[in-house]
Amino acid sequence: MSSEQAPMFWVDGEPATAVPLTDRGFQYGDGVFETIRVVQGQIPFFDLHWQRLTDSCRALSLPLDEVLLRTQLNDFLAGRQDGTLKIMVTRGSGGRGYNPAGAGGRTVLGWFAPVPLPDHRSRDGVSVMFCTTPLGHSPALAGHKHLNRLEQVLARDELNGTDFGEGLMQDLQGRVIEGTMSNLFLVESGRIITPDLSLCGVNGVLRRWLCQSEAVTIASVSREQLLAVDEVFIGNSVMGVVPVVSCEGRQWQPGPVTRRVQQEVFQLFHVDG
Amino acid sequence: MSSEQAPMFWVDGEPATAVPLTDRGFQYGDGVFETIRVVQGQIPFFDLHWQRLTDSCRALSLPLDEVLLRTQLNDFLAGRQDGTLKIMVTRGSGGRGYNPAGAGGRTVLGWFAPVPLPDHRSRDGVSVMFCTTPLGHSPALAGHKHLNRLEQVLARDELNGTDFGEGLMQDLQGRVIEGTMSNLFLVESGRIITPDLSLCGVNGVLRRWLCQSEAVTIASVSREQLLAVDEVFIGNSVMGVVPVVSCEGRQWQPGPVTRRVQQEVFQLFHVDG
Repeated sequence: MSSEQAPMFWVDGEPATAVPLTDRGFQYGDGVFETIRVVQGQIPFFDLHWQRLTDSCRALSLPLDEVLLRTQLNDFLAGRQDGTLKIMVTRGSGGRGYNPAGAGGRTVLGWFAPVPLPDHRSRDGVSVMFCTTPLGHSPALAGHKHLNRLEQVLARDELNGTDFGEGLMQDLQGRVIEGTMSNLFLVESGRIITPDLSLCGVNGVLRRWLCQSEAVTIASVSREQLLAVDEVFIGNSVMGVVPVVSCEGRQWQPGPVTRRVQQEVFQLFHVDG
Repeated sequence: MSSEQAPMFWVDGEPATAVPLTDRGFQYGDGVFETIRVVQGQIPFFDLHWQRLTDSCRALSLPLDEVLLRTQLNDFLAGRQDGTLKIMVTRGSGGRGYNPAGAGGRTVLGWFAPVPLPDHRSRDGVSVMFCTTPLGHSPALAGHKHLNRLEQVLARDELNGTDFGEGLMQDLQGRVIEGTMSNLFLVESGRIITPDLSLCGVNGVLRRWLCQSEAVTIASVSREQLLAVDEVFIGNSVMGVVPVVSCEGRQWQPGPVTRRVQQEVFQLFHVDG
């Protein structure tokens, strides 16, 4: 079956484009998700996506049959080539009010258009702005890619009507944490630094891959520090690495560390940068 | 039409029990809701519910046709008597990723079983515990009854397997903020005190009604203060006022201020307490 003919959305392993109103994902944002780049039918960062998904399900006590989801995933990807896959795991229907006891869990798989790479952003970089919507501290949820994403929606909305390619979010103390849909990386004297996410933020797959493959320093980052470093880039596991070329009047050229890391990700994506 | 025959759920004004997967309420918790007590086909706290719903929609830039929703609400309630109504307003489908631009909005109305009042909890009171799940600080969302409710779900889950009737949630500095599904009130020398919600928490309809009809002091509340006051009660606009009779070994009798306020709410609900 070609990917054009295959159903684009599955709910609990069956083709479907709707979920019950009673699903706790809809009622409370009671679930997690992964947005995944699929290259030639394969998932380059599979282990890191799977680890975060299953870790988050455990942390939030979400019911998940890992064997079943893996089977669904393999079946769903059969015949598909390049694109973006979203996997959602919700607590499903059941429970009573906020009380989750008795809810059975639900899986949703959805297929989206491929992201062209390398695009003008990966080549030329993007300008970024600081969003005013703060990222609240929530240690119970920090790091997880859960379905409570209203802060990101409000922050992303601030970019509408501007030419900025991403918005940077700060916590309540003004520390710079991440982009609305990407993690943030600074390069200072050849050393890669990324903000600490213990109180808020999403611990992205690209960020975790980088922390495994490079000597990345995790630190508290202020606006002033950000504007003073040699290179800045943002990234996630779908768009890869994107150079930041300006912020608040400060300008950068895409630097050598950014380009090197970008090429490594392009190789995983089988892309000629 | 009797309430038994009338459809229990409406989506965008039509009977339906499912929402599109692409609804941003499901994808991101991008919406708000009200849980409303309906008494003899009327909504005793209508103005306060409506004010919060429309205020929250404005604050989160959620598209809402107020006239249309009011019409839907009147039609939905026609022939129904006593029960709990949930209204959800989501940003609907559309937008791209977190970017909400272009999303059209969606309304969902659902009908639930009536809550019997007065029940044993309003008569005898409940014991409460402190939950360990903290309430994160998120000033962009504080006060609103939005669909990002994972913290409440995790906190409510802590009560399973216990006999506690509600769990109290604290913020990251240990201030006591609210119950998992109720606001919190303390009585000291006849004066009602309720925790400040400027950094987190839901500004409940019952809380707002009380602040309008009584001289309520809004203050920062510590565990120690809570355990030292004369009376403690919790409440929301569905269950009314419920006395707290014990917490961490401290015991209270339902006190005169609690009983007086409880009776006032019963009168609004046309209940003989």
